[in-house]
Order: sequence, then structure tokens, then C-alpha cells
Amino acid sequence: MSAHFDTIIAGGTVVTAGDSIRCDIGIRGGRVAALGLDLGTADRTVDATGKLVMPGGIDSHVHIAQPSGDGIVMADDFESATRSAALGGTTTVLPFVLQEKGRPLRETVNAYHALAEGACHIDTSFHLIISEPNEAVLGQQLPALVEDGYTSFKIFMTYEGLALNDREILEVLDTARNCGALVMVHCESYDAIRFMTEKLEKAGRTAPKHHATSRPKLVEREATHRAIAHAELVDVPIMIVHVSNREAIEQIRWAQQRGMKVLAETCTQYLVLTEADLDGLGMEGAKYVCSPPPRDRDSQEACWDGLRDGVFNVFSSDHCPFRYEDAEGKLNPKAKSSFRWVPNGIPGVGARLAVLFSEGVKKGRISAEQFVALTATNHARTYGLYPRKGTIAVGSDADIAIWDPEKRLTLTHEHIRDGADYTPYAGLDITGWPVLTMVRGTVVVEDGALVGPKGHGVYLPRERSPYAAKVAS
Amino acid sequence: MSAHFDTIIAGGTVVTAGDSIRCDIGIRGGRVAALGLDLGTADRTVDATGKLVMPGGIDSHVHIAQPSGDGIVMADDFESATRSAALGGTTTVLPFVLQEKGRPLRETVNAYHALAEGACHIDTSFHLIISEPNEAVLGQQLPALVEDGYTSFKIFMTYEGLALNDREILEVLDTARNCGALVMVHCESYDAIRFMTEKLEKAGRTAPKHHATSRPKLVEREATHRAIAHAELVDVPIMIVHVSNREAIEQIRWAQQRGMKVLAETCTQYLVLTEADLDGLGMEGAKYVCSPPPRDRDSQEACWDGLRDGVFNVFSSDHCPFRYEDAEGKLNPKAKSSFRWVPNGIPGVGARLAVLFSEGVKKGRISAEQFVALTATNHARTYGLYPRKGTIAVGSDADIAIWDPEKRLTLTHEHIRDGADYTPYAGLDITGWPVLTMVRGTVVVEDGALVGPKGHGVYLPRERSPYAAKVAS
Amino acid sequence: MSAHFDTIIAGGTVVTAGDSIRCDIGIRGGRVAALGLDLGTADRTVDATGKLVMPGGIDSHVHIAQPSGDGIVMADDFESATRSAALGGTTTVLPFVLQEKGRPLRETVNAYHALAEGACHIDTSFHLIISEPNEAVLGQQLPALVEDGYTSFKIFMTYEGLALNDREILEVLDTARNCGALVMVHCESYDAIRFMTEKLEKAGRTAPKHHATSRPKLVEREATHRAIAHAELVDVPIMIVHVSNREAIEQIRWAQQRGMKVLAETCTQYLVLTEADLDGLGMEGAKYVCSPPPRDRDSQEACWDGLRDGVFNVFSSDHCPFRYEDAEGKLNPKAKSSFRWVPNGIPGVGARLAVLFSEGVKKGRISAEQFVALTATNHARTYGLYPRKGTIAVGSDADIAIWDPEKRLTLTHEHIRDGADYTPYAGLDITGWPVLTMVRGTVVVEDGALVGPKGHGVYLPRERSPYAAKVAS
Amino acid sequence: MSAHFDTIIAGGTVVTAGDSIRCDIGIRGGRVAALGLDLGTADRTVDATGKLVMPGGIDSHVHIAQPSGDGIVMADDFESATRSAALGGTTTVLPFVLQEKGRPLRETVNAYHALAEGACHIDTSFHLIISEPNEAVLGQQLPALVEDGYTSFKIFMTYEGLALNDREILEVLDTARNCGALVMVHCESYDAIRFMTEKLEKAGRTAPKHHATSRPKLVEREATHRAIAHAELVDVPIMIVHVSNREAIEQIRWAQQRGMKVLAETCTQYLVLTEADLDGLGMEGAKYVCSPPPRDRDSQEACWDGLRDGVFNVFSSDHCPFRYEDAEGKLNPKAKSSFRWVPNGIPGVGARLAVLFSEGVKKGRISAEQFVALTATNHARTYGLYPRKGTIAVGSDADIAIWDPEKRLTLTHEHIRDGADYTPYAGLDITGWPVLTMVRGTVVVEDGALVGPKGHGVYLPRERSPYAAKVAS
Repeated sequence: MSAHFDTIIAGGTVVTAGDSIRCDIGIRGGRVAALGLDLGTADRTVDATGKLVMPGGIDSHVHIAQPSGDGIVMADDFESATRSAALGGTTTVLPFVLQEKGRPLRETVNAYHALAEGACHIDTSFHLIISEPNEAVLGQQLPALVEDGYTSFKIFMTYEGLALNDREILEVLDTARNCGALVMVHCESYDAIRFMTEKLEKAGRTAPKHHATSRPKLVEREATHRAIAHAELVDVPIMIVHVSNREAIEQIRWAQQRGMKVLAETCTQYLVLTEADLDGLGMEGAKYVCSPPPRDRDSQEACWDGLRDGVFNVFSSDHCPFRYEDAEGKLNPKAKSSFRWVPNGIPGVGARLAVLFSEGVKKGRISAEQFVALTATNHARTYGLYPRKGTIAVGSDADIAIWDPEKRLTLTHEHIRDGADYTPYAGLDITGWPVLTMVRGTVVVEDGALVGPKGHGVYLPRERSPYAAKVAS
Repeated sequence: MSAHFDTIIAGGTVVTAGDSIRCDIGIRGGRVAALGLDLGTADRTVDATGKLVMPGGIDSHVHIAQPSGDGIVMADDFESATRSAALGGTTTVLPFVLQEKGRPLRETVNAYHALAEGACHIDTSFHLIISEPNEAVLGQQLPALVEDGYTSFKIFMTYEGLALNDREILEVLDTARNCGALVMVHCESYDAIRFMTEKLEKAGRTAPKHHATSRPKLVEREATHRAIAHAELVDVPIMIVHVSNREAIEQIRWAQQRGMKVLAETCTQYLVLTEADLDGLGMEGAKYVCSPPPRDRDSQEACWDGLRDGVFNVFSSDHCPFRYEDAEGKLNPKAKSSFRWVPNGIPGVGARLAVLFSEGVKKGRISAEQFVALTATNHARTYGLYPRKGTIAVGSDADIAIWDPEKRLTLTHEHIRDGADYTPYAGLDITGWPVLTMVRGTVVVEDGALVGPKGHGVYLPRERSPYAAKVAS
Repeated sequence: MSAHFDTIIAGGTVVTAGDSIRCDIGIRGGRVAALGLDLGTADRTVDATGKLVMPGGIDSHVHIAQPSGDGIVMADDFESATRSAALGGTTTVLPFVLQEKGRPLRETVNAYHALAEGACHIDTSFHLIISEPNEAVLGQQLPALVEDGYTSFKIFMTYEGLALNDREILEVLDTARNCGALVMVHCESYDAIRFMTEKLEKAGRTAPKHHATSRPKLVEREATHRAIAHAELVDVPIMIVHVSNREAIEQIRWAQQRGMKVLAETCTQYLVLTEADLDGLGMEGAKYVCSPPPRDRDSQEACWDGLRDGVFNVFSSDHCPFRYEDAEGKLNPKAKSSFRWVPNGIPGVGARLAVLFSEGVKKGRISAEQFVALTATNHARTYGLYPRKGTIAVGSDADIAIWDPEKRLTLTHEHIRDGADYTPYAGLDITGWPVLTMVRGTVVVEDGALVGPKGHGVYLPRERSPYAAKVAS
Repeated sequence: MSAHFDTIIAGGTVVTAGDSIRCDIGIRGGRVAALGLDLGTADRTVDATGKLVMPGGIDSHVHIAQPSGDGIVMADDFESATRSAALGGTTTVLPFVLQEKGRPLRETVNAYHALAEGACHIDTSFHLIISEPNEAVLGQQLPALVEDGYTSFKIFMTYEGLALNDREILEVLDTARNCGALVMVHCESYDAIRFMTEKLEKAGRTAPKHHATSRPKLVEREATHRAIAHAELVDVPIMIVHVSNREAIEQIRWAQQRGMKVLAETCTQYLVLTEADLDGLGMEGAKYVCSPPPRDRDSQEACWDGLRDGVFNVFSSDHCPFRYEDAEGKLNPKAKSSFRWVPNGIPGVGARLAVLFSEGVKKGRISAEQFVALTATNHARTYGLYPRKGTIAVGSDADIAIWDPEKRLTLTHEHIRDGADYTPYAGLDITGWPVLTMVRGTVVVEDGALVGPKGHGVYLPRERSPYAAKVAS
């Protein structure tokens, strides 16, 4: 053993999903080469005394540069989104490739690659979104992409032009079962929301807060039950994404306790925002319009319970940024006429980790090990990136965030620096912040400044999820 | 008080939903005029010594003379269906008027009246089935009919040409809320069943037993959850009809315990048949093809529990008869090619009461009072016929069945005599049988023989259900 | 039929557990002889126009003239307790005979008979309380009394000198199983309460309100679970009395849904009082000290749910009166030193029906039929008095309360007139009040005045409960 | 960093609670000094190619050399028990010190130390068993021992001479709360078991299989509910040990989902044995007599679910060995007269890991990481030994078991070699076996042979459990 490393991170407490251990990390060739004390010499030694050394975050649910139609433009391209992610301690993001109807899936995938290539500060890998599950797509295009490492995709039960009907969902699930892909499901019921929206509009109840009125908990709960039932019929695992409330959680827990393979994700907004945030002065509420909407304190508690006891195995941001003061964003020309036209989505890739660390670990709701599992390890495992990503272990990529667990700040958009012009978490008092972010051994953020080489991030083809249906070989 | 009656029923034990009492009944003008002992004189005295004197059954879920398309013909007209009902101790039936698309609802209603007029041995009242909930129907036609006493209607979540989509269901529920009607829902998911059916057909699994495979419990459970969620969104009570299995019951119980106004019905077939009955030699299984299909012993137990503890408030037959050996019935030309073409439905209006009495009361699962509530009183209450119908009380119609609780027989189609050529309950050992059926004071069946005047039955306009949404006056 | 009666109640709506019917009642020889319209002539005709004519209440849980030790004296003898009951529309009460240790049970029973004989305005029957379940008691004395019509008895899991240990409870249940008696169980855990009481006293927290602190919901819940488990082990039905809260109800509901024969009762105080009532100025809270203590709004709701959906089959008062301003009552010499010495129990036999009618029927929480079932019919059925008592049916005792459903009053002790000097329900606005009470055809209360002959009440030996274990004959 | 180690374990896959990683381990001074590849040189290099390198097992529930009364002698002393443990891959055991009534606790603790001193092949730490919780014990003796590192103790709700009553349990829990100790509870109800035992004996049902009849699931469920309620009242965490069945698990899950700090353990016997094993020829069933008894397949499934989803955080053996063919063991003179006299307990410390690995990991029920968590890491965390014990991390004791995951064998007592003369798991087909066991860097077992120095094990004082109540400092 040569006792020389590219970098040694010394003096910190290394936290993984399993352990919190006082030891140093030797890094060579972008990978963790050794864990120990007095490891030897290094080109650079990072002093982590008093710090927590954790796997860089993986955010498996972000939207970047995704077209929204109607002249709405997403606030982030790959550069700005990965910049914000890196600033917040995240080292891998998984954005979505949205299928364009009538165009071969592979072409759209390639178009996204063209956008991402050379632009990313951190590593990326793509999920797909299936919006047109016709025979060509399900029979050939999708299986071929799964084979090439695009091993997960999302479907929608709501949204104009995206919502699949039950028959389509069943066919998609069947395809996933056959090709070993993992399906992520957005569970809200299109018909119920349209019914409510039209009623509200007729009644002149069009302010942003009625976005929440139009899709109450039960609408998400019903779709959750339905998605679970479909998965049960087809006998295929699914991932229920961005679960917001106690009723939906109750459905998932019920399924899990029956032995069904139902995975679930919750997000930052469901822990610290509520429906009341949509009820701001004028159009202020538009800043918090996302789907499902934030709920209430009781559902926040239910989400924390689910994070703690394993109902949720991943915690994501569902980063989906639109500028507020912008005719291509939240305040587009039609937005004032009805909440229906306020783009759905809020930025969060930069704030996710700090919010969970501060509200979760520091307030005693979850352990530091659970934090790592929920923000990194389980994402890597679930989506076929483990053990390359998601942990600090010999041989893994040296994707590391060093946290000062005592650093205090009041959150502003300055800390986040994504492409939006606000953060919904502004004003939150935070304890704990990442002071250094390293991707494959290269420091990309230090003390709040981007220091990495331009375009350091690479694309990651993925293995099939270990939770997906097994494919006969 | 004049001590003379048209009829006195003497010596029996009068059973109502609340009491079992040794007393006599004095009948005058078709109504119960007095209850007592030594009531006086009468034109006719019926000796009920050793017998149970119970309200005649009300069967609120029967299909009569309903068109089925594809050359399939229902085995019963109003004469034969009400004959069988009377033989079995039932004195009122509520068949459905199936909306014909493109035709004013009222015309179709009138057409059914024309069929029923003068043909019925017992009293009838109509529910509607809404298959085309367009604006004209929901806006004017339906509310007008509700106003005229057609205060309940059924919708379907499955069946080609009948299934409503979620948006339509919501609009229908909204209409029901506005006009104070009670909506009955057939809860099975169309898309899931079609998906399974096509898979099974592709795999060559087309025998009658695969009717059950194509619509497993979870398909009913999911639709049940969905219907409940829709009703919750609209804030309107609903009636879930013909519930077959433990999983669906679990959903209903959950809703009821949350305080939601969800009523439920189960039927004869779910107490004594199982999926195994569909697996007979050759096409024999076709005799048991109905939807939802019979399930298993565990679900039978769950149905009994639900009858006992109030999850179900009515017990019906879902009488829907097709002849077995008949090219217009179960063995139609296409039936052998796939279970898909076997007409859905089995006869049961004649057997319903005896099966529940024998399996329920005699075997100690329910009390005689519960039997009366589940087979008569609660139907009358639920559908706006109480107190004219459904009980034996002063002023009520003298609709009475006198039961010999010890009479034993092995059931054959001879006991039933509906228009079909078989009974799915053939071979069942029965203890307890109605020896006399009286409708508004007139004996229509005695010792298994029809003795009433032709066309004795009348049509009953109904009040709004006390369980329906209240209409602002 | 002779068309002459002793009394006819005319013009009212007769309500039973099954029906609400406009009809008259003919009474002869103390029994209901006929139901009808235009029944004939009568010595007296009571005009019940616009009134509800209901079975007189049965209160199966009252304490009368029961010794309490320590110089405490119960505020009611048989005269005063039955007076209050009659004023409130109750026609039968079931007080307890408390076993005196070391004395043959029969002797104590006879002593209570001596107290009751000639003193009662309404009918009575005795339960026993078993405090010393030794071999002689369980082997001979108790079975002999069951045989003689004392077919139910109560045991305690708490109270100094009364609490049975688990082994004793099991032996008592085993005895009940063998002799077909129904066991009523007071479910609170002695050890837990003592533990809490001593802690509270050490901490100087001795005010009446700490009576509630010393026995929180979970203490009742645990004992409820334990009693159910014991009954399950022995395989014998039990009645859980005076259930106060959601957690205990959850246990009972769980047991019932598993098919166990667990009956349950709740009481007036758990519907309209809360723990806050114990927190009055000075010793005022002592007026509300009873066990289990009143809880909170959520548990009130749970109790209403249980009344509505059948978890509870009887609603009682647990009348257990002590005078407030009295050295032999609530304010005895030791009471100020600790809540431990405040006698447990509150008066309620007179207020029970009006509170349930006003809060339940008039506010739409239960139907009038459910009111009758919960306050009369089910008591009679459960404790072996049906059909002689508990309904208005031909042949039953003419125990009838005529209610003015619109009468309004604000409750004071003047309406109640039991032996205590207060009512815990004072100040409650009531709609609906009994204007006439009749026992076996004899009017005992009319317009709030006692009008019956002195000592009209008789003692009622009882059949075995139909819910008790069947005894091999 | 000096690149020389005492030992390098090379080529294996290192499994911890969080990760499975291909890397080498450098050991120096009995501790893990480094994790990496090509770590350097070593005095000894262990080739682990193709093997799993896992933390040595921790068995936190074993009985060694514990007096049983009645001339019954436990089959293991510290030498033989730790020998078997080491052979099975376990490197730390936590036996119990049973309080002798009337003797200062410390004296008894010292007596156990005297027995263990110099006798152990692996490390040990003691729990206490409190059988006489008087004031001196709870007030002084116990807190002093907790302060000295005996930070957990067990109490019994059953067993002659050991069972505490509810009041005592509450006092013990209160003491634990005050001094920050973790209480382990044996949940079975003494009174119920005695009641059943005497009934069975009277009926002549005395064979070993009636041991199970005498303590059905509900007896454990009731005690579990009671223990949870007591802990809730005192507001102190507890550990429910050796949970055997679905009903008890349901109680624990319910408590956990309410947010209560209830930990739970299950054991080998509840995964692979059933009640049927107690029904052998002659007295063969005695070999399987332990408490709670093994149950049925359904409860086995429930235990697996609980291991998988976190209801259980530790998996132990409850090793409690008695020789079968021995007058001081299972076949003592009284054993044939009644199951009551068959010593309760079965050996298992040697088989625990292999059974869980083979039935759990190899059969896909749990992951290798979960195996490590359940058998080592969580024990160390729960009982205050982490991170010294329970993981493979820099700085931790080099307590390591190297497993051949493909090794197949049919289990016999030869593989186990504890002091008993049988293993209840004989005949079980096993895949996966530990081929080397190392304690603090010293190999104690290699290829099934003891190779360590005599008396290598040391005693481990423990920190307070992080799950125990926090003690005010």
C-alpha cells in the first residue's frame, strides 16, 4: 500500500447509512481508496475536524429544462440546477426526459443529453416520463432504453396531456414488469381535479390558494390506492413519488404491511410548508403552487413518521423551478385569471438537504444515519447506482459533502442560487450547512463558492433497480 | 273500534326489525289495522300457529326484462319474475329502468311501465340506470323523474357501453346531491377487467371460470375505494351494491368508521357460492357467471360479519336471469369462445329469503329481527317506502309472509319457478320456507301455489331516501 | 275481542326499536293488549297527540343504598332513586347487591330485598357484585342465585377491597360460563391507579381534578384489553360497562370485529361532561368525580360513534349518588386532603333519558328507534327481561313513557329529585321531556308530579341473558 | 500511516448495516485500523475471497449458569456457552445476572463475574434480572449498578418466584426512567398461565405439548399490551423480548405507530419451529419447551415481516439450555407428571446466526445488511456498546465473522457444541456458515475448531442505551 493519496479528509466523523465513525478518508483517482486514521500523505488534506463527512446527496426527483407548453419556461438549465444542487451538498441529480408525443423516445433522450453535456457541475442520470404509451413505445423504444441504462420512468395520473388512463397505466406497468424497469407514479386523479377546478372557476374562486382546494388529500389518496391496486394486479413493484399527506401514507403503509412492493418518496415541501402558504397577499401564493400541494401540520407529522419508520425510502426535492416575477413563469399572463394557469412546481434542489438536516437531525426526529440513507444511499440503491454512488466506502466515487452541523443561517435565495428568483423556504432558520462539496474527488463547492472545473459532471447509465421485477435471463 | 276485519292472522309470532311477539294481526282494507290477541271476527282467519309472521320481503336489486344487446334476452318478464318473488316470500321488488342512449329517460321509463302494468303479482317500484349522463339528462330529465318518485338510480364502473368514467361519475353524484337522489354504484374497474380479459384470451384461458380470474377481489376493492372517494369529494351519500369480498368490505367499513355516509348491500351468491362453482364440467360454470363473481369461504365469512354488525344494511338478490340451455342466454353462440360473452347475471329473487333464513337465522348467524331488517325494513327505509312497506305495524300495507321455520327441503328450480331454466342454489338444504304470501291483504301464494288475482301488483312512487342528501326547500 | 280497555293511549306516535308508527295502544291488566286505531272504549284515554309514545326506560346500571365504608352514605334509598327514575321516564332499574365478605350471598341479597320491598315507584331487578370469589361462592352460592333469576353480576378491576386479581377474574368468568351468567366488568387497573395516586399525593397534587389525572384513558384501555383477553381465554361473553373513551372503544371494536362476544355500555357523563368539569373552583370538581372520569370532546365523539354503529348496545346512567354539601358525601372530612377520598360516583338516573334524547335524537346523532333500543329494548334483551319489558308490543308490560319531543327546559335538580343535592347536568338545555310515565298500566308520573300508588314497583326475577354462554341442559 | 498491520483480511465483501463493499480490512491492536484495497503488509493475511466479512454476532439475550431451583441445572457454564457462540460466529454475548432475593444485587453480580472470569472465549456483558424490586434495590442498589455500566435489566410477568405484579412493574419502570436504564420485559401473564395449567392438569392433559396449550397467543398479547400501557403511563421506553406471534406483534406495531418508544426482539425459535414440534413421541416434545412457545406458520410469517420492516430491531437466541436426557434437565423426575415441570428454555446461541442467514438472507427475506443490523449493530446500539462493538469500522473492535455464503450443511449438535445434548434445530438444511471468528483481532474459531487462547473474552461495561430515558445531568 502506497501511503499517498490525492486527497485526505481528516478529522471528521464519517456518517453512512449504517455508521457514524471518527475516521479519515483517503481519496485516489476520484474514488474512496481507504478509511482509517493516520492514513499517510496527500496532495491536499481537508481538515474536517468537528464536521460530519457524509455521502453527497442524491436527488432522484428533479426537473431541469423540461418544456412546459403555453410559453412557460422552466427556470433552470443544467448548469444552474446543478450549481444550486452542489451548493446544497448534492452530488448527483436524476432529472426527467419528458417524452414528446409522436417523436421517437431515443431522439428526445439525445436532445436532453445535448443540453446536459458539458453543462453540469455534478453527475446526472435520466429517468424518462412516458406520456404516449403506444405499442411502438412500449414494445420496442422503452425496453431498448431500459437496456441502455435508463432503468426507471415516471407516469402521471393527472395533468393535461400527461395523464394516462387506467388502461394505459396497466400496460405501462406490464411493460415495466417485462423489462425490469422501476415505475414512478404521480398519484393525483385527473378527473377529480378537473371537476373541482371547473366548479371553483365557476364560483369565481380562482386565487392561488384554490389550487389546494382543487386537489384535496382524498384526491391523492384515491389515486394512490388505485396505483397500488394496478401494481398489485400486474404484480410489479412501484414507487409512489412526492407523497404529501396522512391519508395517502395510510394507503401505502397498508400495502407495505400486506407485503406488496410499494416504495415511496416524500419531499421537502411536505415537511415545512402548509396549504396556508398558498394564501398570501395578491399572487404571493403562486410561489408555493406545486402538486400535490403542501397540506397541514398533521400531514407533516405523518410524513416525519414515514421517514422515520421506513414507509418512505427516499427523500427528494421534486425541484421544478419557475421564476415568480416573470411572464414565462408564475406570473404569466393567464395566471391571475385562475390558479389553473399557475405553473405547477417549486424550486428545492438546493435547500433539500439543509432543511432535512436542520428540521430532522438537529431536532431529533431522525438520526444522522437515517439522513444519509434517505438523501443518498437509498436513492443510489433504488435507482441502480449503488455502490458507486450513495455511500462512503472503499471503491465508491468520492462524492462527499462536509457538513458543519452547528452552522446557523436564515435561508435566503442567495444560499440556493438556482435559476429561480425566490426560494419557498426563505426565512427558515437552519442549523447545519454543507461547507464543502466534492464530486469524484474534485472539490466543486467550498464555503459557498463554486470552485470546480466547468462541466465536471458526467452522465451515469444505471443498473436495473434491485427493487424492480426480475427479468428472466 | 269495530271488531271485524277482512283477515285475521292468528296464533303466530310476529317478527319485525325490533321485536318478536306472540300476537294476532287484524287486516282491513289491505292494511294492518290492529295487533292484539282475541282481536274479534274476520272474513278469513289464517292460522299461523307455530309460524313466524314476517313482513314480506323487499328485493331492492332485481333486473327484469332489461335488454342486454347482442341477441341476449333476459329470462324474466314482469310476470315470471314477480311470480318467483311471491313464491319466495317477497312482496315488493325494485327493478331497474335502463336508460337508452339518445332517448329521453321518461320515454324509457314509460316503456317499462307498459311492460309491468297488469303483469305483476306483487308491488314494484323502479330505480333508473344512468348510462348517458349528458347535460340534458343531468340537468332536466333526471331531476324531474326524481321529483316524480324515481328517487334512486344506479351507475356502473364497468361493462361495455355502461361504464361511466370518473368525470361522469362525479357529475352524476353532484346531480344526486342537488336533487336528493340516492346513487347505487356497481364497483368494478372497467379498464382493469378489460386488461385482464385480453391477457387471458391471448393465453387461451377462456373457460367460464376465468370470468372470476379476470376480475379478482382487488379490482372490486379499488373501484370501491374510488367510488367512496368520489362521494367524499362531492359530499353525497352512496350505496355500494352487491359487495362480494373481504377487501371491498374493509374499504366500506373504513369509510363508515370515518363517519362517511356509505351504505352497502350484499347478495345471496356471496354467502353460499364460491369461485369454485364457476369451474364446472364443460360450460356448467356459466350458470354461476355474475359480477362481481362469487369468491371464497373467507369472503363469505366477511359478508356474514358485515350483515351482523351493520356494514350492510340491505341484503338483495341482484336477480339477473338468463336461461342456461339457450342461444339467447348463457350458451349463446359466442359464449364458448370466451367467458367474455357469457351473459353476466344469475337468477335469485325466489331463493334469496330462504337461503338467508336457513343459513343465517337457523344457523345462528343472525337473529330473526335482523333477517327482517335486512330483507324488508331497511330496503323500505333506504328507498323511501317506509312505513308503508317493510314492517308489520298499524297502518302499513299488509304485505306479509308466513314462514314455517321448521320446513325442510332441498332446493330445486321447482321451488323457484322464475323464467330461467335452473337455479344456482339447486341442491342446497333449506330449513324454513314461506307458506303464505300476502300483498296488501290479499293472499297471492299459499302452500307453493299462486292463488292471487292476475296483476294484483301496483306501482309505488317513492319518497326521497332519508339517507340521501337533503334538498334545500 | 272485547273493545274495552283499562286505558287507551291515543293519538301518539309509537316508537319501538324497529318502528315509528302513528297508532293507539290499548292496555288491559297492566299489559299492552292491542295496537291499532279506533280501538274502542277505555276507562281512561290518554291523549298523546303530537307526542312520542316510547317504552319506559330501563336503566341497567344504578347503585342504590349501597354501603361505601368510611362513613360515606349513598344519597339514595330505593324510594328516592326510583322516584327520580320515574320522573325521568324510566320504568325499570337494575341496582346492584354488593357482596359482603364473609357473609353468605343470599343473606345480603335478602337484605337488599328488605330495603326495596314496598319502597319502589317502578320495577326493579338485582345484579350482584362479587367481591370475594372463594370456592363456596363460586361453587354453590352464585350458581344457586343465577338459577333463581339473579343472572348477571359485576366485578371490579379497581377499588380498594373490590378489585379482583387476574386469577380471580378468570375463576369468576369460568363460573359464569358454567352457570350461564353474564359478567359485567369495571375496567380500570387498580395497580396503575394506586401508583399514580401516590405519586400525585407525594407531589401535593390532590385537588379533585387529579382524580382524572390519576386514571388516564390508557389505564382504562389496558384493563379493557385485559378483560377481553380473559374472556377470550375462558371463551365466555362479557359486558364492559361505563366505557368512557376512544382508546377503550378501539379495543372493544377490535374484539367485536374479531368475532368475540364483547358487549359494551356507555353512560350519560361520557357524552356531555369532560375532564374540565373536575377543575372547578374550590371543591366544586368533586361533583363530577366518578370512575372512569369524563374525558374530552374527542372521546365524546367516539362514544356517539359507538352508540350509532353498535359498539355499545346499552346506554345507562351508572347512577351512584352522593350528596355534595355533606360530611357523609362528597365533602367528607378527608375529601379536601386528597381526591382519593372523594366518593366515586355521580347521580344520573333521572337525567339519562332526557340528555340522550336531547343531545342524540334532537341533534340528529341517533334515530328515535335507536334511542329506544339503547335505553330500553337492549337492556331488556341483554339482561333477560324481554319481551316482558323493553318494548311496546302486545303482551308486554305496559311500561310506557310519553314524551313531548318539543318541550324545552334548562335542567336543574328540581327536574330530577333524587336523593342528592345537585345534578352534574344542571344548566344543560334540553329539548324533549317525558310528560307521563306508566308502569304496568298504572300512571306513576304525570306532568312532573308523582301520582302513582306508594310502592307500586315489583321485583323482577330474570331469565338468563341470551348473550351469556349456553348452559348444557 | 505505517502500512503494516497485525492482520489483514483480504479479498472479501465487507458487510455492515449500511453497506456491502468489496474491500480489505487492516487490523492493529485488536481494532480495525483501516479499510481499503492494497492496504500494505501484515503479520497474518486472511484470505476472504468469495466470503462475506461481517461484524461478529452479538447475542443480547442468553442465559448462562443461571440457577433454576428444584434441582434443575442449566447446561452451560461460561466456557461452554461462549464456545458455542464463537463456533456460530458470535463474538459478544449478554447473559443475565438473576437477582437472588434477600441478597445485595452487587454480591450476586460479583458472583457471576467470578464464574465468567477467565472462562470466556468471547466478550460478555451482563444484564440484570430484577426479581425483588424493594425499596433498597430500586432506591440504591440498582441505580448504582446502572451507573457502573449494568445499564439494562429484565423483568418477568410470569414464572413462579419471578413474576412481578403490576405495581412492582410500574415502580421498576419508574426507576429505569430515573436512572436511564433500559428495561426488557418478558410478556406472558402469570395468572392466566396458572389458571390454564391447573385446568389442564385436572383434565390429565399433562404432555409437553400442553405447555403450548397453557399459554396461547392471547396470553402473550395481553401481557404485551399491559407492558406497553405501563411504559406509556410512566413514559419510559421498553424492550419487549422474545416476541413469538402475530397478535403480540400487532400490539407492538400499534404502539410504535402511535409514536411510543417500544423496542422489540424476536428469536430463532419463532422463525423455524412451531407448536407441532412440542407434540413428539413420548417426551420428545420437551426438547422444544420454551416460553413463549413456538407458534404456527402464520406467526412465523409475521415475525419475518417484523424483522423486515423494523418492528423488531434485534434478533436473539434466548439461549437457555437444559440437557434432555438428564435428571437435572428436561427429563427431571417430575417432568413426566406434567409439562409444568419441564424446564423452560432451549439452547440456541450457536445456531442463531446460521439459521437467520440461511432462512433469511439466502431465501431473500432480508438483505445481508439487515442481517448485520439485526444480529450485531442494533444490539450494540441498543445496549450501549456501539461503536466499539457491532460494526466493522475504523476504531471499532475487530470482532469479525467470515462467512462462506455457499457452504451447505445439515445442522447437528456437532456444529453447535454447547453444553446441552441436543439442538432443537437438528436436521435443518443450512446454506452459509461462519468459517472464521475473530474477537478483538484474535482468531478464536477457524474452520469449526476452537483456536483462540483460553479465556480470551473480556467483560464490557456499557454506556446507557441511547433509547433509554435521558437522565438529567
